[in-house]
Amino acid sequence: MNSITFPPSGRARAVIERVFPEIEGGDFPIKRTIGEEILVEAHIYTDGHDQLSCQVLHRPAGAEKWSEVAMAHKSNDHWQARFNVTGLGRHEYTVIAWVDRFLTWRHDIARREEEADILAALKVGIDLVTAAAKRAEGSAALALKNWAAELGATTTPQARQLMAQSESLADLMAIYAERLFVTEYHRVLAVTVEVERARFSAWYEIFPRSCLTEGATHGSFAGVIKHLPDIAAMGFDVLYLPPIHPIGRSFRKGPNNSLKAGPDDHGSPWAIGAAEGGHRDIHPQLGSHEDFRHLVTKAREQGLEIAMDIAFQCSPDHPYVKQHPSWFRHRPDGSIQYAENPPKKYQDIYPFDFESEDWQALWAELKGVVEHWIEEGVRIFRVDNPHTKPFPFWEWLIGSIKAEHPDTIFLAEAFTRPKIMHRLAKLGFTQSYTYFTWRNTKEELTEYFTELAQHESREYFRPNLWPNTPDILPEFLQFGGRPGFMLRVALAATMGANYGIYGPAYELMEHEAIKPGSEEYLNSEKYQLRTRDFTRPDSLRSYIARLNQIRRENMALQSDWNLRFLPIDNPLMICYSKTAGDEALVMVANLDPHNAQAGWVELPLEDLGIAPDTSFQAHDLVSGARFLWQGERNFVRLDPQASPVHILRLRRRVRSERDFDYFL
Amino acid sequence: MNSITFPPSGRARAVIERVFPEIEGGDFPIKRTIGEEILVEAHIYTDGHDQLSCQVLHRPAGAEKWSEVAMAHKSNDHWQARFNVTGLGRHEYTVIAWVDRFLTWRHDIARREEEADILAALKVGIDLVTAAAKRAEGSAALALKNWAAELGATTTPQARQLMAQSESLADLMAIYAERLFVTEYHRVLAVTVEVERARFSAWYEIFPRSCLTEGATHGSFAGVIKHLPDIAAMGFDVLYLPPIHPIGRSFRKGPNNSLKAGPDDHGSPWAIGAAEGGHRDIHPQLGSHEDFRHLVTKAREQGLEIAMDIAFQCSPDHPYVKQHPSWFRHRPDGSIQYAENPPKKYQDIYPFDFESEDWQALWAELKGVVEHWIEEGVRIFRVDNPHTKPFPFWEWLIGSIKAEHPDTIFLAEAFTRPKIMHRLAKLGFTQSYTYFTWRNTKEELTEYFTELAQHESREYFRPNLWPNTPDILPEFLQFGGRPGFMLRVALAATMGANYGIYGPAYELMEHEAIKPGSEEYLNSEKYQLRTRDFTRPDSLRSYIARLNQIRRENMALQSDWNLRFLPIDNPLMICYSKTAGDEALVMVANLDPHNAQAGWVELPLEDLGIAPDTSFQAHDLVSGARFLWQGERNFVRLDPQASPVHILRLRRRVRSERDFDYFL
Repeated sequence: MNSITFPPSGRARAVIERVFPEIEGGDFPIKRTIGEEILVEAHIYTDGHDQLSCQVLHRPAGAEKWSEVAMAHKSNDHWQARFNVTGLGRHEYTVIAWVDRFLTWRHDIARREEEADILAALKVGIDLVTAAAKRAEGSAALALKNWAAELGATTTPQARQLMAQSESLADLMAIYAERLFVTEYHRVLAVTVEVERARFSAWYEIFPRSCLTEGATHGSFAGVIKHLPDIAAMGFDVLYLPPIHPIGRSFRKGPNNSLKAGPDDHGSPWAIGAAEGGHRDIHPQLGSHEDFRHLVTKAREQGLEIAMDIAFQCSPDHPYVKQHPSWFRHRPDGSIQYAENPPKKYQDIYPFDFESEDWQALWAELKGVVEHWIEEGVRIFRVDNPHTKPFPFWEWLIGSIKAEHPDTIFLAEAFTRPKIMHRLAKLGFTQSYTYFTWRNTKEELTEYFTELAQHESREYFRPNLWPNTPDILPEFLQFGGRPGFMLRVALAATMGANYGIYGPAYELMEHEAIKPGSEEYLNSEKYQLRTRDFTRPDSLRSYIARLNQIRRENMALQSDWNLRFLPIDNPLMICYSKTAGDEALVMVANLDPHNAQAGWVELPLEDLGIAPDTSFQAHDLVSGARFLWQGERNFVRLDPQASPVHILRLRRRVRSERDFDYFL
Repeated sequence: MNSITFPPSGRARAVIERVFPEIEGGDFPIKRTIGEEILVEAHIYTDGHDQLSCQVLHRPAGAEKWSEVAMAHKSNDHWQARFNVTGLGRHEYTVIAWVDRFLTWRHDIARREEEADILAALKVGIDLVTAAAKRAEGSAALALKNWAAELGATTTPQARQLMAQSESLADLMAIYAERLFVTEYHRVLAVTVEVERARFSAWYEIFPRSCLTEGATHGSFAGVIKHLPDIAAMGFDVLYLPPIHPIGRSFRKGPNNSLKAGPDDHGSPWAIGAAEGGHRDIHPQLGSHEDFRHLVTKAREQGLEIAMDIAFQCSPDHPYVKQHPSWFRHRPDGSIQYAENPPKKYQDIYPFDFESEDWQALWAELKGVVEHWIEEGVRIFRVDNPHTKPFPFWEWLIGSIKAEHPDTIFLAEAFTRPKIMHRLAKLGFTQSYTYFTWRNTKEELTEYFTELAQHESREYFRPNLWPNTPDILPEFLQFGGRPGFMLRVALAATMGANYGIYGPAYELMEHEAIKPGSEEYLNSEKYQLRTRDFTRPDSLRSYIARLNQIRRENMALQSDWNLRFLPIDNPLMICYSKTAGDEALVMVANLDPHNAQAGWVELPLEDLGIAPDTSFQAHDLVSGARFLWQGERNFVRLDPQASPVHILRLRRRVRSERDFDYFL
């Protein structure tokens, strides 16, 4: 025996496996917002017929003490329990289980038939309860002592056999019985708990340089402040600004991405860095740091958080280029390598060389940039092209920033391959851009959103739906007319709890591409200022305001997981529900922006909380119209010129003659 | 910067995730037999457009040096590579990847258009190749030097641009280029490599005490030796003996499990232990240790391995009970707790108390039992009811035995809930009993065997199919007559690479249950000796011999993973294929033991290697009949009285007039 080694917990007979949620063997945390629930599931069992106790343990990371929640056995060795996260930051959970001698005894004694067997078993139980009484104090100790005495009393064995099943005895034993040979699941899993806006937000993107104050020829933070009431009135709660830093002059692009800029051209805000400064500095024409802080404050007063663009790249004029040449890759002739994807060249952009010998200084500086803007009041960051910088860098950056500032939000602007988008979400990005921008048909939308809402990736991947961006004017919007714009924003606002629009261009329905087959805007704001008449009578601002108001008033639209597609017998129409508690919403959309479409929807009445044999009201929260419906199949017709989407709140009770005073 | 910590490998830009096979985050090894292949898959990608090199590393556990296999990119960031395991025992594998500067350069230079850009890129390439030449030696160094010279020669830039795509240059660079910032997958995964019988075996179970030599009244090892030629002739390669140890006398069971045994009753072999000894000893009437070793040798001479029953439980008379009372649980009155599942009692069995304070001594002793029989020549163990002993015990026992004796096989006799059967397989059991015993209908068989053959659990769960056992006479065999016995053994032998029968009772078609609705044999051999006429003319021995011969001659039947169900338009018939290399077998079975059935099968000709427009032969290896088939749909009729199952070897070429001498 001397050379034999034994596992330390050889008597821990419970087995715990397949704990869920667990992302890739626990490599990554799941995500929640404050107050949200986590349903923890596991496969737990033991050898033989003994009974188990199973608990979920959870705590804020760093806390010493665990909170416990008893798990319930569902079926087939599948156990589960729920808890809610209440504080920001990293929270941990795991599972423990053990063979419970009291529960095993309780289970067995009920099945004994011969009196001698019952009496023998009662003795075992009395020992267990007496031992627990010794561990208890005060009234609990007294109660357990009484139980032991009752089990040993002179009533019939059958009466005492029944006593063993008492729930109040079981409750006491759950607390005071000895836990022997506890199996601890060998991984502690993590959840990142974030602010509510991480789960539910409406973004509005605007170029500050196009926000003119009266008489000005270049926009400014003051101009943005002037627009705040309108944006707030539309119901948005995040205001996202493209980069506000000094813009490079070397190889500056002119209007419509022309290679030569004129002397008065403003260049692309993403060509960051000039003599006036870099990523911590502000384009002089937009305002000062003080002006920026003023904007942050004024926006917050109106319920709007400023989202800052993080684009980690430099123009050739960026101060880094001279101060830290080792942060860039050099060509054999000694010049700095500009961005390229042969044969395309982007001479106005120098990417950082993350393989630099001096990488730690580079990382520290970029972290400093984020911290700088946090100090200026920013809590939300929209990260430009994160998939072109190393994944370990983002994991480190977001991890260390959120350790200090758990209220920050990072949106990943990665329109790229699926696994890469998922990795960015797993490693820490709060929200992610999606393929919604190009999903137009019923089949495309159903397949993609079923995945987003149902697949386990929802534990970490929070979609943020954008019908347009300054980089993408989708063909659907180029040719769908006003109904197309109404449809796409309504889909985004109801399919996703997080969505956003590239603002003025959207509500004013700008739809001209630079050339056929391109998704680039004509006269794109990326390369020039755009002044607009925001008060144009055909603007969609009131339609969008209505959508955002409905989102705020209906909890069901504030989550992604509750989306469910319902059958409708017209391939150009789509129908889906979202429910929350008592709330049942059914959305019906006409995907054809050119023609009225009609169809029969099929409702899963029970799931929607509707009795099968009563009439109910379908109240269109968009138009205010109320329809009297009955049964599973109901008819819907949508004229896209009027309103391409119903957001129907089902109201369960319809008045009848029985409600009439004189009926009784 | 002083308080900032950085990840050690911040410049390792490749990401490796979802490595497969990986069981539960690498908690458990997968299984293979010697020579088998492992297809390793992973999701691998990096930021931006750079090109990756990805390698699977593998080695015998404990070896210092890894072998490498280059992975190929399939699609969508999915990479894979294959290797074969060549030695018994534990083997390890993992994945590495890095951004490959040479491949990135090679990819980019091909896309350059302007001559200046090509010339600049050539310089970068020359530097890379020159650096590699310095790391190489001999002819490789010379070859790389030549390549560098050629890339810098005075031929046109376009000619040299083309040169960069040379495969022989790429091959050299794959070996000698510097690997910078390599990402190592953070888990090393394991595979248990076992002997071929672990994957492909045919078991025959026989009670030695029923194997009489002439004139004897109790069977013996000598009697078993007498039967060996018959069993070998039937084509089996594992001979499994129920426990051969001394049998307890206290509470001994009589025939048909009666509570009182008569003085001449032999008791159950699973009531192990008496005055004559325990788990390391042999029932005196069966023979001596020397006789047992002789049996092992004689069996091996005929291609049969002896499988020993491991039943870790004791009769009240077992020497352990007196020597180690602490290994058993005690009742409040001081007596030892017999096995029970209230209200059922098994007073003839004392289970071990694995929660004993003395558990380490108990574990060590039980391991000693296994080692004892390994010393006596046994390599295969059929473990009785492993699910009633703790999982950590088995993981430790099998793990430590296989570390010394990687050629051992452990079969888990666990007819219990699915997760428990899977756990036993994961923690180390080589093979597992299955639900096949009760799967009779087309739907049941299709669903269950699709799971066994296709689900990722096949990486660790090797089914061993038993149409009967001494504990289970399924109803199908009670009422299916001779066709039922033929059908079930043919299904077992062709659906599973591992199968077994409880021998004489099977081939002699014993089908009487102790009472209606029971699956217990009448006059079960578990409680009494049975003498039989093995030469009965109606015995299925030649049918079974034919099945086993077909299994040996056809590789396709030696694996579980290649099973595929094919459509047949009769719900009482089932059709499935197994292929291996050039071999294509199609099995067609009539599941109705009472009536002839006919149907049209649909063959996936391309997958079976048959040209769509030619005739081919379907050669029934059971009956020898040859059918001429053509196209996807072919007709099959099976009379269960004659032969309920076809095992059709498809032979691709049918002779035609063109083969006739005079045709040319």
